[in-house]
Amino acid sequence: MITGKNYIGNKLSALGTISHKTINPKLNIENTTEFIEATFEEIEEAAQLASEAFKVFRKVSGVQKAAFLNAIANEILVLDQELINAYTTESGLPEGRALGERGRTIMQLKSFADLVSNEDWKGNKFDAAIPDRQPLPKDDLRKTVTPLGPVVVFGASNFPFAFSTAGGDTASALAAGCPVIVKAHEMHSGTSELVASAIIKAAEKTGMPNGVFSHLSGRGPIVGSALVNHSKVKAVGFTGSINAGRAIFNLASKREEPIPVYAEMGSINPVIITPLAIANRGEAIASTYAGSITVGTGQFCTNPGLIITTENDKTEDFIQDLANKTVAIEPQCMLHPNIKAGYNKNEASVTSQEGVKTVAKIEGELKNNFVASAIASVSGANFLANPKIHQEVFGPFSLVVKSKDEDQLVAIIEALEGQLTGTIIAEKEDIENLTDIVDALTNRVGRIIFNGVPTGVEVCPSMHHGGPYPASSDSKFTSVGVDAIYRWVRPVSYQSFPTELLPESLKNN
Amino acid sequence: MITGKNYIGNKLSALGTISHKTINPKLNIENTTEFIEATFEEIEEAAQLASEAFKVFRKVSGVQKAAFLNAIANEILVLDQELINAYTTESGLPEGRALGERGRTIMQLKSFADLVSNEDWKGNKFDAAIPDRQPLPKDDLRKTVTPLGPVVVFGASNFPFAFSTAGGDTASALAAGCPVIVKAHEMHSGTSELVASAIIKAAEKTGMPNGVFSHLSGRGPIVGSALVNHSKVKAVGFTGSINAGRAIFNLASKREEPIPVYAEMGSINPVIITPLAIANRGEAIASTYAGSITVGTGQFCTNPGLIITTENDKTEDFIQDLANKTVAIEPQCMLHPNIKAGYNKNEASVTSQEGVKTVAKIEGELKNNFVASAIASVSGANFLANPKIHQEVFGPFSLVVKSKDEDQLVAIIEALEGQLTGTIIAEKEDIENLTDIVDALTNRVGRIIFNGVPTGVEVCPSMHHGGPYPASSDSKFTSVGVDAIYRWVRPVSYQSFPTELLPESLKNN
Repeated sequence: MITGKNYIGNKLSALGTISHKTINPKLNIENTTEFIEATFEEIEEAAQLASEAFKVFRKVSGVQKAAFLNAIANEILVLDQELINAYTTESGLPEGRALGERGRTIMQLKSFADLVSNEDWKGNKFDAAIPDRQPLPKDDLRKTVTPLGPVVVFGASNFPFAFSTAGGDTASALAAGCPVIVKAHEMHSGTSELVASAIIKAAEKTGMPNGVFSHLSGRGPIVGSALVNHSKVKAVGFTGSINAGRAIFNLASKREEPIPVYAEMGSINPVIITPLAIANRGEAIASTYAGSITVGTGQFCTNPGLIITTENDKTEDFIQDLANKTVAIEPQCMLHPNIKAGYNKNEASVTSQEGVKTVAKIEGELKNNFVASAIASVSGANFLANPKIHQEVFGPFSLVVKSKDEDQLVAIIEALEGQLTGTIIAEKEDIENLTDIVDALTNRVGRIIFNGVPTGVEVCPSMHHGGPYPASSDSKFTSVGVDAIYRWVRPVSYQSFPTELLPESLKNN
Repeated sequence: MITGKNYIGNKLSALGTISHKTINPKLNIENTTEFIEATFEEIEEAAQLASEAFKVFRKVSGVQKAAFLNAIANEILVLDQELINAYTTESGLPEGRALGERGRTIMQLKSFADLVSNEDWKGNKFDAAIPDRQPLPKDDLRKTVTPLGPVVVFGASNFPFAFSTAGGDTASALAAGCPVIVKAHEMHSGTSELVASAIIKAAEKTGMPNGVFSHLSGRGPIVGSALVNHSKVKAVGFTGSINAGRAIFNLASKREEPIPVYAEMGSINPVIITPLAIANRGEAIASTYAGSITVGTGQFCTNPGLIITTENDKTEDFIQDLANKTVAIEPQCMLHPNIKAGYNKNEASVTSQEGVKTVAKIEGELKNNFVASAIASVSGANFLANPKIHQEVFGPFSLVVKSKDEDQLVAIIEALEGQLTGTIIAEKEDIENLTDIVDALTNRVGRIIFNGVPTGVEVCPSMHHGGPYPASSDSKFTSVGVDAIYRWVRPVSYQSFPTELLPESLKNN
């Protein structure tokens, strides 16, 4: 049952007077529950509890943490249709997506459980003593990792399950041994509270210390800012817009003790399509990309917002075909009136820049929060001249850039800000001419895809989901895949230590 | 020959009008060369050259980079006595230290050469494709690392070789594939220029692109700030004070594109000594620590500035013995009049706080930049009540804190800011009672030593030299040992890539 209260550790709490309701975007009406914003007193209590819980939780064995994570997965499944209904009601996303994303979330929890059920992930290193080394003896030295401390996770608007309350940030932080305080995303506070109840139940059932998890509501920046500024908080996980992510990064950097912020932010995910690929299979590419641009109403961080090709006599036909296929897909609902407003504003901003032409856009009136997909095009010269054209349009929109030659195409890639992904669509015969493009992309993105689509982020060890700023605030770390755990730990060396006092995983080499 | 000019890539350049001279601290006289501060034009040229060089250097093979690093080591040795003389003249440190530190620097260069001469260090990961997976096929995915781009390295006052021009930061950044621009430390500009000439020679002999290394002089923050703010610079390495390190961190965090700063800053390196250890071998501990406190005039980042013990009837005798032994060691010279002034100011500040008692301090007049070693003591209650007592006194000084019981001792550790190291001096019989102390230390430091001294940082894979803020700006990374290379790279994934376009190290699983 959704109560509208905060979880301060195990305890439901609602001391505050400010509240908000979520919105059903498909119907554009308010949902019924009032969510009470956490007070400073509640924030303080959650942080203190997390700090106390950390003293115990950091020493909990990997096997016990795995049991906790698996129990969270189980309790989420127990919530069953109530949870799926909350998700669809608050997000406007279809039930199939809710089920798929729930499956992904469960899989993430289980993959971190598997990861920490043995000690391999710690990458421990051992240097044996050399007592008779000249001129000085060498001491025994062993290195492992230790968790940072309490972590604040911000729920993401566009993934109410997989990047929110029990999503990848929370799962990886708990796996690392860090207590988590979730700031629920205000657009799906009810979904978030239900998932939080599953985490609390799992913590109780597996004997985790009170305070290992708390869940706070709030609209606007007040609760989040207080959490990021709290001295007991040692790291932050965030998925969302550049503006919000940068604001959190700035707060964290200005603290007396700066803390790391792992913010996964904006990306337009450039896709380079060669003229030969267009000539050989332009129609198939247009179909695939019309799907990728509109899937989930374009509300994925890997949405292909920029397509670049070298212009020839087939280019305009391809662009028109892509545009026609994109607008032929039935319009879908966005997550929230604010997201819809942002889409319309940014789409209008980009398409009003000099030289940008709207090739096709869904016309006619659309009900509630449904939006009009669109494809625009621009010359390489205009794109290079105006950074306003580079901005992300979060939603079912893509801009095709027509470069005059391959040098200009490489210059366009080099002029881009950091990106999560880059994609190359090419033929076998193109390969020997793609080196410069691959080099330029490698320097701008975190993942390069060949003849595929950027949407759909596999959860596996080789996945890197993070890129140079502003795609991520720290390009060294991924927010998807088991390596995401390394955001929440730091190394510690033990020199000449007696076995009895070493952490378990360092006792035997 | 020391020219006083900057290296803008391969070219000696001195367009500026501002200059400074270094000081011979033992004689307290100026050395003769005038070092011309780099102009904004020269800074711009160095950054542009580094950015151009990066396009080539990032693809240079590990074997070629190893040849470059080994050539640097060789060219440093070729400089022979001229370099050793510059070092001792500018630092006041003895020739034996110069030779030892040169040896360490050579060894660091060679260890990074060894590291990158094969691809193991990249930690590549491979996920095979599963074309018939349901509901969706799995693509082939491979992950490696790629260098960040041009790196700025600030020379450290206290290690003119090992943490300066061709020190660990430069060696690891070049090994990673990042061009380096060194901002020479103004206290040893001549030593720095000579080492820079060795790097330039090595780059030319091994065919590295012009701009892979530049070397800029300047007193004060102007040159350094311009470098940190330059859009072509992608990361910073620094060893020095908290004030300077934090200023650089703040600049880098406020950039339009924030960049990582790896600053190794202040540390007082707490040493916990049990009453039983004092009872059994207090005199030997006092001898060892008198040496560790004064070695290198206390100018090591791992200098033991804080000793904590639980008070009993033997405590005062131990403290007096430690103090007597410390002041019995002949006074030594500090690196610079400013460093001496800082020592005297901070020592006076700590010893003037309520409850702090100077137990012994070298008396009488000391010539030039020689300073008086000192030992002070304070009660646990006073220490806990006043953070001003926690401040680092960079130099041959240590404060002994007498805690009233073990709970207070743990509270003292928990109240400390982040530290590079923590040390426990204890007997076998103490071990079963040390768990809380080890836990508290693990949460505050980057390396814990048992029955040893924190000074002397082994260069090996298990070494972690970095701790929670303010010991380091990023506790996840070490500045000593081969893992220091990971500061300068980020992961990149390749999805469904044709073999011909993959980086060499990803071509075969």
